[in-house]
Amino acid sequence: MNFSFRHLFIYLTFALSIFKSNAHELASPSGQLKLYFSLNEQGTPVYSLDYKGKPVIKPSKLGLELTENVHALHSLYDKFRIIDGNQNTFEETWQPIWGETKDIQNKYNELAVTLEQEGSERKLIIRFRLFDDGLGFRYEFPQQKKLVYFTIKEERTQFAMTGDHIAHWIPGDYDTQEYNYTTSKLSEIRGLMGKSYEEGNVSQTSFSPTGVQTSLMLKSNDGIYINLHEAACINYSTMHLNLDDKNFIFESWLTPDSHGDKGKMQAPCTSPWRTIIVSDDARDILASNMTYNLNEPNKIEDVSWIKPTKYIGVWWEMISGKSSWAYTEEYPSVQLGITDFNKAKPNKSHGANNTNVKRHIDFAAKHGFDAVLVEGWNIGWEDWFGNDKDYVFDFVTPYPDFDLKGLNEYAQSKGVKLMMHHETSASIRNYERHIDTAYRLMKQYGYDAVKSGYVGKILPLGEHHYSQWTNNHYQFAVEKAADYQIMVNAHEAVRPTGIARTWPNLIGNESARGTEYHAFGGIHPNHVTILPFTRLIGGPMDYTPGIFQMDLTNGAHVNSTLANQLALYVTMYSPLQMAADFPENYERFLDAFQFIKDVALDWDESKYLEAEPGQFLTIVRKAKGKNDWFLGSVCGENGHTANIDFGFLDAGKTYEATIYADAPEAHYLTNPQAYVIKKIKVTNKSKLTQRAAPGGGFAISIIPIQK
Amino acid sequence: MNFSFRHLFIYLTFALSIFKSNAHELASPSGQLKLYFSLNEQGTPVYSLDYKGKPVIKPSKLGLELTENVHALHSLYDKFRIIDGNQNTFEETWQPIWGETKDIQNKYNELAVTLEQEGSERKLIIRFRLFDDGLGFRYEFPQQKKLVYFTIKEERTQFAMTGDHIAHWIPGDYDTQEYNYTTSKLSEIRGLMGKSYEEGNVSQTSFSPTGVQTSLMLKSNDGIYINLHEAACINYSTMHLNLDDKNFIFESWLTPDSHGDKGKMQAPCTSPWRTIIVSDDARDILASNMTYNLNEPNKIEDVSWIKPTKYIGVWWEMISGKSSWAYTEEYPSVQLGITDFNKAKPNKSHGANNTNVKRHIDFAAKHGFDAVLVEGWNIGWEDWFGNDKDYVFDFVTPYPDFDLKGLNEYAQSKGVKLMMHHETSASIRNYERHIDTAYRLMKQYGYDAVKSGYVGKILPLGEHHYSQWTNNHYQFAVEKAADYQIMVNAHEAVRPTGIARTWPNLIGNESARGTEYHAFGGIHPNHVTILPFTRLIGGPMDYTPGIFQMDLTNGAHVNSTLANQLALYVTMYSPLQMAADFPENYERFLDAFQFIKDVALDWDESKYLEAEPGQFLTIVRKAKGKNDWFLGSVCGENGHTANIDFGFLDAGKTYEATIYADAPEAHYLTNPQAYVIKKIKVTNKSKLTQRAAPGGGFAISIIPIQK
Repeated sequence: MNFSFRHLFIYLTFALSIFKSNAHELASPSGQLKLYFSLNEQGTPVYSLDYKGKPVIKPSKLGLELTENVHALHSLYDKFRIIDGNQNTFEETWQPIWGETKDIQNKYNELAVTLEQEGSERKLIIRFRLFDDGLGFRYEFPQQKKLVYFTIKEERTQFAMTGDHIAHWIPGDYDTQEYNYTTSKLSEIRGLMGKSYEEGNVSQTSFSPTGVQTSLMLKSNDGIYINLHEAACINYSTMHLNLDDKNFIFESWLTPDSHGDKGKMQAPCTSPWRTIIVSDDARDILASNMTYNLNEPNKIEDVSWIKPTKYIGVWWEMISGKSSWAYTEEYPSVQLGITDFNKAKPNKSHGANNTNVKRHIDFAAKHGFDAVLVEGWNIGWEDWFGNDKDYVFDFVTPYPDFDLKGLNEYAQSKGVKLMMHHETSASIRNYERHIDTAYRLMKQYGYDAVKSGYVGKILPLGEHHYSQWTNNHYQFAVEKAADYQIMVNAHEAVRPTGIARTWPNLIGNESARGTEYHAFGGIHPNHVTILPFTRLIGGPMDYTPGIFQMDLTNGAHVNSTLANQLALYVTMYSPLQMAADFPENYERFLDAFQFIKDVALDWDESKYLEAEPGQFLTIVRKAKGKNDWFLGSVCGENGHTANIDFGFLDAGKTYEATIYADAPEAHYLTNPQAYVIKKIKVTNKSKLTQRAAPGGGFAISIIPIQK
Repeated sequence: MNFSFRHLFIYLTFALSIFKSNAHELASPSGQLKLYFSLNEQGTPVYSLDYKGKPVIKPSKLGLELTENVHALHSLYDKFRIIDGNQNTFEETWQPIWGETKDIQNKYNELAVTLEQEGSERKLIIRFRLFDDGLGFRYEFPQQKKLVYFTIKEERTQFAMTGDHIAHWIPGDYDTQEYNYTTSKLSEIRGLMGKSYEEGNVSQTSFSPTGVQTSLMLKSNDGIYINLHEAACINYSTMHLNLDDKNFIFESWLTPDSHGDKGKMQAPCTSPWRTIIVSDDARDILASNMTYNLNEPNKIEDVSWIKPTKYIGVWWEMISGKSSWAYTEEYPSVQLGITDFNKAKPNKSHGANNTNVKRHIDFAAKHGFDAVLVEGWNIGWEDWFGNDKDYVFDFVTPYPDFDLKGLNEYAQSKGVKLMMHHETSASIRNYERHIDTAYRLMKQYGYDAVKSGYVGKILPLGEHHYSQWTNNHYQFAVEKAADYQIMVNAHEAVRPTGIARTWPNLIGNESARGTEYHAFGGIHPNHVTILPFTRLIGGPMDYTPGIFQMDLTNGAHVNSTLANQLALYVTMYSPLQMAADFPENYERFLDAFQFIKDVALDWDESKYLEAEPGQFLTIVRKAKGKNDWFLGSVCGENGHTANIDFGFLDAGKTYEATIYADAPEAHYLTNPQAYVIKKIKVTNKSKLTQRAAPGGGFAISIIPIQK
């Protein structure tokens, strides 16, 4: 069926439906998006979405399948009738605790359809919120007698595409998102699935040859950008998408528990929001705040302790093979409380030793960093991985060469904080058993942020990183941290879904392939041009940029130019930014390092100057409470020439722009460290054409000249 | 092979083995038990056991099977050679914090055989401890390079019986032991398995048509009593026994995790002890302390707060259908932190209300009880069961009609304590999340003991009540309670294995069919004559005796006479004893109630006067630090006439014996409340013939007459 025919079909259906009172239509505030909702002949809810008068989501079914052992009637996807349909409008402007802009507008028209199922008398509300940048909808299960506790066998939410779109996708996996993206047509996913898994090196829980993860970035042949994801995934398992690649229909595929079930529900409750961000301009996808808007407002009263943080760390040296997390190699395994580390023979390569940490504190203090992350400070790293070890860390006992008290005092005397590290080895219960004690220890010594990690198989076995039980853990850890006034940066946890609006102490997540994979031999140069369209839709990423030395101790090569690394501080928005390389590498390139020192962490304004996922993006941001602007531009392996219009600057002011750019001979593979730094004066009339090398980029600081 | 032939065979094997240095022999201190150990032609460890020169365990294989995904060599049961064999003797006398006797002798000869496996170079130690009352042995995995982390697929420990013994058994189940016992020949187990499950009413995870649980009580045709169980089951899954009913060989069958694996191990570590208690006198099985002796000594330094406790409770009224745990029936379900119980409509039947609790406190104070258990005091009981509900209780928030502070103050003003109740609904993580807060609340209000409960399916699903992960939880809860100086009485937890020697704050467990099942329609009259030979081998049971009113509100009948109920306070040893019936029922029979008030909880001596599992047992005990003796005798449905010799009394002293006995017309079914109380004078020369009715018994208090 071609588009116009299909469109006609919808309208006919709609007209008939109105007659039967089973259809609704909703327009976004500007009218450019239109939602159609109806029940089909089976009483199955169906929605579709138009953008500027053209279909972007074809008629797609909604509903859930329940397990039969709980209810004789396992369908919650048909035999419905509409018993109520309410429309509302909403508008507010709220101020994030940290963010890309000072203000966020939250404006939508809402349709809440109440359905009742014939035979079961069960009620289901489907709530649609239609913004100008997209659609969010969720299932709501109101309190009722015929649907109290229930188990989801599968959610049956469809997203029917209008054609064989281009997708930037990572393969389905219940336990990791740390993949390179594959860019292909939908019809090519099946053929490329095997190769896409090869790009991973952690767990691989394939469930379908056409199963992919969200946030999924799509582009139609006629130039419509579509992003599929979810918002406010709380007490629910993570949604994957399974593609019917004959008809280009995605359907939700939730992460199972150990029994293969997909969710334990108790009404009243809701599903997360399913989100569809739509525009014919890729920059609008980057600018969208819909995911945050669909989350609840901030629940933390006193937010004075939540602070954007720029940090260095004793970390890259372990990642790149120069030093070790572990303290000793004397024993085949260690047992907390039994192994006496004071008597153990040190391995001489332990990174988290007093001398090395002090060196980092000194460097941080000298260059104005807020904090120093130290990994490998606590006992247990000798056999922390791959052993299904339950009592793997206690999160409170330092190795003999790490003076917990002394180092914190030293750091504080220098105006720097240490950043805590809690690797859990995915032993969830063990972490929860120790989490109060661990957080208390942090407060005792003055730590205000923790990087937590969930590497490896979830214990107890049977649960997954993205199953409801484990998602509940991440949420528990964040909320408990808020009680202790601790900021959380969780690695290997579930990818964010805008929850940081509600819990702004969740200042970072990994949940995608981060810089460390350069050391593990594989990040595609175009990766950083895709992440802002996918992983960053749900919240900031602790991407840990700033690598200046591209050839690593372990023989790996960082597929990026030095200038590209600088640009990431702007293009990869995060209130938490690491300068990941060694102090000695920064000291070799202090002129370039200056940008990392200068760049802001929190912003009043952000302008998305140009963007094409997989190819390039250029973003400029205005520092919070200042007139300083910072611009970043990155590109993939084809390189890119940007045309920048400085019209975003205040009229009548002159600024000094310091341009950190790839040198003409730069190339991410052969000559990544070739950069040039140039200072020019600019006003709001200025224009600049700036070239970026393959895998390169450029960064510009734009500081008003005081008169 | 008949016995004599078989015996000859062993000795031949043994003689040959010595030649090859692969055989060992060990005698118990008195010499009445003899252990033989050797390797067979496959290099598989084999042991056998003789009692008074006759085989009691035929040659039985030992070893473990590991998962293949961890190690190429999954066998840890063959290709061994003996590289060391050490014999030791040990003797000590220790004093339990509470117990059946003041002193416990721990005397054994030990054989530790170190084995090395050809091809794998893995080392395994099998340690045998041979006492005069039985054999304990375990696997020890010393620290080594070739066996560090490993996963047990199955333990392959055999117990080869010498014939078609009589067994008192309950069917295999990974989640409950709350069954009636079936008494049958081994060859009849298969045919009776289906019926044995019908006796259960909780979860049924059958794994084999001949799978049974331990502690298993057996009797050979030639009158040898054999008890199979385990000691010190810590960080290991619970052992069941699977019977080869052609050859009468039991083999270990561990409780699986969600992946079907049976144990995650890290060397150095050990298995629990596998125990075989043996005697030709059933009374010796009751007197055996081998299970405690195989556990580690007490680890709690200050034990002043661990006190035997006699208590009543707001409990039987819920069990018997007279009142409810829940406060309201207004909502189809409740959500902690969301449902406002202050605004909820009370259901009028809530048992844990201020008036009722005060009435119980008054009764406890009047009659000298230590404590009052109150169940249903905390929010969440409306939908606590069967919903796989994760956040089911918070363990700290009382219902509006339960004045936590006021009631505790009232109780303390009367010299009585309230006993805490933590039903977890088997939501393990939720309990661990709240356990610190919950224990702290207890200390704040003066609670010193908690009854915990684990009703329903373990959450997260996939784990079982007796899997390693869950066993680790019970241990965690007990050890953490010790930190808070709290005594634990855990219901629906794993059956005990003598751990109370090490952690004497574990003052009780349920872990078998207790009195509550009378209200659920089914305890066989012979049940209480079997429990001391099975469930009580590992530790005390909170059996909750003392029911005086046999016809219950819910229509059920208690299959016991009133006199039998009194005798249980002696025959079912526990430092924690409940008087489970309503105050008003005790007030109807105050003369009989006097025995419950008088009976001691802690003992200097215990004499097992006569015993036959399934038929009768008579026990007399001397109160701790006093000259008071208390005697209990119970029997099954055939009734019993006991001949009691008072020779255990001090010579030259006269005692007043108050006999609480079944009246001649008493019968557990038709006339359970017919009892007679008689006072006589006795000395150590006295003898008494005393009849007990079907399902009956008698109790005697024997108090020295002061001159």
